[in-house]
Amino acid sequence: MAPMEDDGIDAVRAMLGAKARPVGWVERRARIAEVGGAWPLADDIELEAVDAGGVPAEWSRAPGAGTAGVLLFLHGGGYCSGSIVSHRTMAAEAGRAAGLPTLAVDYRLAPEHPFPAAIDDATTAWEWLVAEGHRPGEIIVGGDSAGGGLSLALWQRLQRSGRSGPAGLWLVSPWTDLTLSGASMDDNDAVDPLLHRAYLAELAAAYLPADVPRDDPRVSPLFADLTGLPPTLVQVGTDETLLDDAVRLARAAAAAGADIQLHAFPRMIHAFPLWNAVLADARRALTEFGDFARARLR
Amino acid sequence: MAPMEDDGIDAVRAMLGAKARPVGWVERRARIAEVGGAWPLADDIELEAVDAGGVPAEWSRAPGAGTAGVLLFLHGGGYCSGSIVSHRTMAAEAGRAAGLPTLAVDYRLAPEHPFPAAIDDATTAWEWLVAEGHRPGEIIVGGDSAGGGLSLALWQRLQRSGRSGPAGLWLVSPWTDLTLSGASMDDNDAVDPLLHRAYLAELAAAYLPADVPRDDPRVSPLFADLTGLPPTLVQVGTDETLLDDAVRLARAAAAAGADIQLHAFPRMIHAFPLWNAVLADARRALTEFGDFARARLR
Repeated sequence: MAPMEDDGIDAVRAMLGAKARPVGWVERRARIAEVGGAWPLADDIELEAVDAGGVPAEWSRAPGAGTAGVLLFLHGGGYCSGSIVSHRTMAAEAGRAAGLPTLAVDYRLAPEHPFPAAIDDATTAWEWLVAEGHRPGEIIVGGDSAGGGLSLALWQRLQRSGRSGPAGLWLVSPWTDLTLSGASMDDNDAVDPLLHRAYLAELAAAYLPADVPRDDPRVSPLFADLTGLPPTLVQVGTDETLLDDAVRLARAAAAAGADIQLHAFPRMIHAFPLWNAVLADARRALTEFGDFARARLR
Repeated sequence: MAPMEDDGIDAVRAMLGAKARPVGWVERRARIAEVGGAWPLADDIELEAVDAGGVPAEWSRAPGAGTAGVLLFLHGGGYCSGSIVSHRTMAAEAGRAAGLPTLAVDYRLAPEHPFPAAIDDATTAWEWLVAEGHRPGEIIVGGDSAGGGLSLALWQRLQRSGRSGPAGLWLVSPWTDLTLSGASMDDNDAVDPLLHRAYLAELAAAYLPADVPRDDPRVSPLFADLTGLPPTLVQVGTDETLLDDAVRLARAAAAAGADIQLHAFPRMIHAFPLWNAVLADARRALTEFGDFARARLR
């Protein structure tokens, strides 16, 4: 299996490096859809577009998906790009691994729709799921990168308003610190093919209104009070500038008394489960998520 | 399951708090044997005393234990206490969870036998296992507390001498920093029923000769070069003064590119899998270790 993994990450790196990095939001959105969809969706996934209380969303179901539990999936892309399309394979295969249908949410993006539009839309989708008859304790919320931060923001909003939250959180390469203060931001700058300080600063500026500081816990959940966090699985690649966003979030969650699991995958890059079609470690990560979700919903 | 867990940790805390903390090495050694053996070994475990190249050791086997792989178990006790007897239930039940026979090692203790006696004995036991025909890639090395630190010390010695190391490491509440610099050392001082700064400082002083600094990576593996670390599972309780020894070790391992998993268990205390007879979370931790070991040895 090792040679396949090695071929896999090299193939992904080659694909990512084949074109110059795009500039401009339109170009970046096209690019993430291209690299996220570089390998096709499995034939046996059923897709269904839905209106989740006014927010566009998509169900994906692999054969054998149950009817009770749900994965509410929030894609990454720095709050400024990414979509149901770019993350379709990751969302659908995560659902397959967990035996759950996945509801992927097309929340509004910055800079057209800055904070808190994304959190508002994630909350609307959550409320719609609950109104549809899904109990909070049957819902796992998860996502990659900004989608990981958004998952934590949704949980915080539910927690602060005294509502029941999800049965668990799944955070892949979560962006938890918009102040960019992790040591890995510099230590891994040379090995991360996707995320660097200048780009992340541009994303943070586009997402945040002028009156919201970058360490606001609603956008930088690393600085939130994590008391009451549900059981959480964090997965990250060792070759990421955001490695310390994951590690420090795990530390903060443990210090708050949470059931927290962190798994760092060697040589893996930002949001690597996107490329599960060619990466054995991406499939391992999804299987691990599936085991986590089944244990939460048992 | 939640009520059972709650009863469990309260029962363990009650047992630990029922007597005054002992002073003196003889008294401490008796006490750890007493609290480690408070609940009896399962009837179906077979024990066999062996001489592992001059180091006393004990095989334990649950029904169905295979013949190829091995768990080499290094008990905790701050390098000054603990034994095959005090940790028999943990060692044997870990082996059961993994489907492996466990070789528990009675390495020499400080202050009578300071550093590097414990590492020498662990290495001797490793060499004996290999001479007995066990390939390094079939051996998992693990332990709790000082046994976690000792596991990392053994791995470092094999690594530095160019020898093959184990297939994986299992570190429960590992003591990785004898300088006691983790924030949890103070933050969790009030909730940890077992380990506090003054006691740990006494243990470190007893273990270390005057010419070995406390940040020497052989005794404080947090400061070691962890490049080449095998896949490692770290388990820790959130109510431990050593929480940050686990978290920071995970961070250092990930930064070195290792496959590292960290799991923090809510409300659990130092070396909680010792009390698997009455703690559901202790059994969860052992099951998780078993899954980890099976994946490594597949």
